[in-house]
Amino acid sequence: MKDDAYAIDRDRLQECARQIADAGRELGARGWTPATSSNFSMRLDADHAAVTISGRDKGRLGIDDIMVVDLAGRPIGTDARPSAETALHTQVYRRFAQAGAVLHTHSRTQTVASRLYAGAGAIRFEGWELQKAISGYTTHESVLDLPVFPNTQDMAELVDRVDAWLDAGRPLHGYLIDGHGIYTWGRDMGETKRHLEAFEFLLACELDLLQLRGKQA
Amino acid sequence: MKDDAYAIDRDRLQECARQIADAGRELGARGWTPATSSNFSMRLDADHAAVTISGRDKGRLGIDDIMVVDLAGRPIGTDARPSAETALHTQVYRRFAQAGAVLHTHSRTQTVASRLYAGAGAIRFEGWELQKAISGYTTHESVLDLPVFPNTQDMAELVDRVDAWLDAGRPLHGYLIDGHGIYTWGRDMGETKRHLEAFEFLLACELDLLQLRGKQA
Amino acid sequence: MKDDAYAIDRDRLQECARQIADAGRELGARGWTPATSSNFSMRLDADHAAVTISGRDKGRLGIDDIMVVDLAGRPIGTDARPSAETALHTQVYRRFAQAGAVLHTHSRTQTVASRLYAGAGAIRFEGWELQKAISGYTTHESVLDLPVFPNTQDMAELVDRVDAWLDAGRPLHGYLIDGHGIYTWGRDMGETKRHLEAFEFLLACELDLLQLRGKQA
Amino acid sequence: MKDDAYAIDRDRLQECARQIADAGRELGARGWTPATSSNFSMRLDADHAAVTISGRDKGRLGIDDIMVVDLAGRPIGTDARPSAETALHTQVYRRFAQAGAVLHTHSRTQTVASRLYAGAGAIRFEGWELQKAISGYTTHESVLDLPVFPNTQDMAELVDRVDAWLDAGRPLHGYLIDGHGIYTWGRDMGETKRHLEAFEFLLACELDLLQLRGKQA
Repeated sequence: MKDDAYAIDRDRLQECARQIADAGRELGARGWTPATSSNFSMRLDADHAAVTISGRDKGRLGIDDIMVVDLAGRPIGTDARPSAETALHTQVYRRFAQAGAVLHTHSRTQTVASRLYAGAGAIRFEGWELQKAISGYTTHESVLDLPVFPNTQDMAELVDRVDAWLDAGRPLHGYLIDGHGIYTWGRDMGETKRHLEAFEFLLACELDLLQLRGKQA
Repeated sequence: MKDDAYAIDRDRLQECARQIADAGRELGARGWTPATSSNFSMRLDADHAAVTISGRDKGRLGIDDIMVVDLAGRPIGTDARPSAETALHTQVYRRFAQAGAVLHTHSRTQTVASRLYAGAGAIRFEGWELQKAISGYTTHESVLDLPVFPNTQDMAELVDRVDAWLDAGRPLHGYLIDGHGIYTWGRDMGETKRHLEAFEFLLACELDLLQLRGKQA
Repeated sequence: MKDDAYAIDRDRLQECARQIADAGRELGARGWTPATSSNFSMRLDADHAAVTISGRDKGRLGIDDIMVVDLAGRPIGTDARPSAETALHTQVYRRFAQAGAVLHTHSRTQTVASRLYAGAGAIRFEGWELQKAISGYTTHESVLDLPVFPNTQDMAELVDRVDAWLDAGRPLHGYLIDGHGIYTWGRDMGETKRHLEAFEFLLACELDLLQLRGKQA
Repeated sequence: MKDDAYAIDRDRLQECARQIADAGRELGARGWTPATSSNFSMRLDADHAAVTISGRDKGRLGIDDIMVVDLAGRPIGTDARPSAETALHTQVYRRFAQAGAVLHTHSRTQTVASRLYAGAGAIRFEGWELQKAISGYTTHESVLDLPVFPNTQDMAELVDRVDAWLDAGRPLHGYLIDGHGIYTWGRDMGETKRHLEAFEFLLACELDLLQLRGKQA
């Protein structure tokens, strides 16, 4: 694994920073990154990723709000401290060779759903046409599980839970953390935004249905 | 039926593409086309329609995201594959000589209502002034039925259900598909957007009323 | 009462048309004028008002979408047909010498509340600080009643109900029509928009409270 | 305490007015300042603050909508009458030496929550990751209390209740007033907006959870 900043393709970094800033502006405008929460990343190459620096306003990101880490989460060519949650981003790049981008947001719907289904450990989606927006799903008759992991300030514990789910051979396209928000990913930023939008929509529909089920005449 | 691209009026096609792109931007901004879902079309002439190509971001449509099909749904002058759902658009143009545009969207309200009323097979609107926004309705004292058809990945089955409803002589200005979204149409894009807005509003009011009915002091 | 178009101050008409178009754009952007519904007016002088022409998109009004009527609702200097609901606007200018503007909108909240409280005949607001946004109210300890009148396509019937309320000496700053929307007014467009925003807010809070009351731990 | 206008740093005042106007535009666009409600302030120096003048549209503030008061709430170098609620702003600057900005808004969520929890006297947040957006909180395992004080038109009474809470040594980062809205503050405008966004988000999640708790399958 390389550990010097000279190995980084600066054009690729610029392009990733631009795509991350664009995504931040869009998601911020929807209110999915309240109070400087959330973080975003993109894969730079086999060994590195570009991630947002902790505590910045995600609706107004610039190149200075992005840093480079290796896939162990160590900062490259900077003194900036990466967010503790960087470990969850780099895990995705290590476990999914095809993953090119990771989005972590805190929408009201994501956060409320995470609390509501924390006990069950997962939310199961069935019968929604929009399940087809998740890569690999071709019919609303499929079953799509979004796990909810317990929240902790110890990232190693969360990394272990995600590893355990994957090591059990269960499909994984995203996950919620209890009281906290969602992580999802895809081949590139476009697919990752599509996955995020689909999960947000499915969660919102599921919560509405919980409220209304059994009330119609 | 003509099957060559030379028969198409290019100015009409340009104008339709512009109107479809404008509608997409508006409806996308409202969140009614999540995760690249939804599709839109306009009638070009007695035998052809312009439809959106599957999988594009509906908030950012350009002329290259639109293709021409005949009313049997066959692509004209292009190798692009039309969306499977094109069959539902061309059916509208075949069955309604006056129909000039079709909008299919996936708002949260449309999708949740479709699940909730799938068992009943239709939602009945009564007593709402906005029923008058649907062409041919002149009083809130009318009754307006919006059917909900079961979802299927087999479009021929859906086409048959719509035909059966129409062949029974029942009025039809739009329909929901369970877990999926709405189809509605009108003489031109303006009337079609008015119909779509009216159905979205009526569905939202009906769901709110379900929640609140019986709770007031 | 004058009945010729020469009596109208063209500068005042231009200014009113501009203020009406601005209000339409703002209220349309909030989704309070779905499917070309709603209508707006301003007083021109002691005997005339400028009102929106029926069926136009309220988010995109121009000077051509506005017409002049006398306070009996008769068109002045135009062949355009005023909306049937013009009678409710001119009634306000006849009954309230100080009224300078009237806004009629159809938000989801206004419409749902009108259905929910139609049986009671009015919604009573108590204990909300924002009651002070209605002219003449100086404390949240006041009581503010917003009547709900039955809907009808016969405007004369509605005019009679409003007259009856006022003739009984009851205070009136706006009213709902069942399944339909709100009417409110003020000295000028600024005060009228403040009244409309306040009623919308109070209705939304009241509906939320209905939902949640009794559920807190 | 100085009482002449010459003591004020005009550059600091200009800068504060700009930051207050920017915050007003942002918060107005979110609908948190309905019907000219709400007020905002920033500390100018040890003895003075800049506050918004009562009754102005908070989404369109200019330098003329801002006035200077001393920390007893007396106007400095102006005949404008400060809002009655100015006393709640100056109290924050007196009690918290580090406080640099105060935001008071009236969102629907804040207002409804205040009514719902007025009886309990406070809302307790537990288990939400976003509690960490409040200065001094480093884990979702902390407990965060937001008090709800009874509404009154007598500001001295409210000032006394806030003083009593603080004199009892209880932590305070913001408070609700029943039927009215929220007050929150921070070191500077950036931290204050983060606190406001975090409280709004936490309140919205708490209300959603009240609705949904116990309904999941």
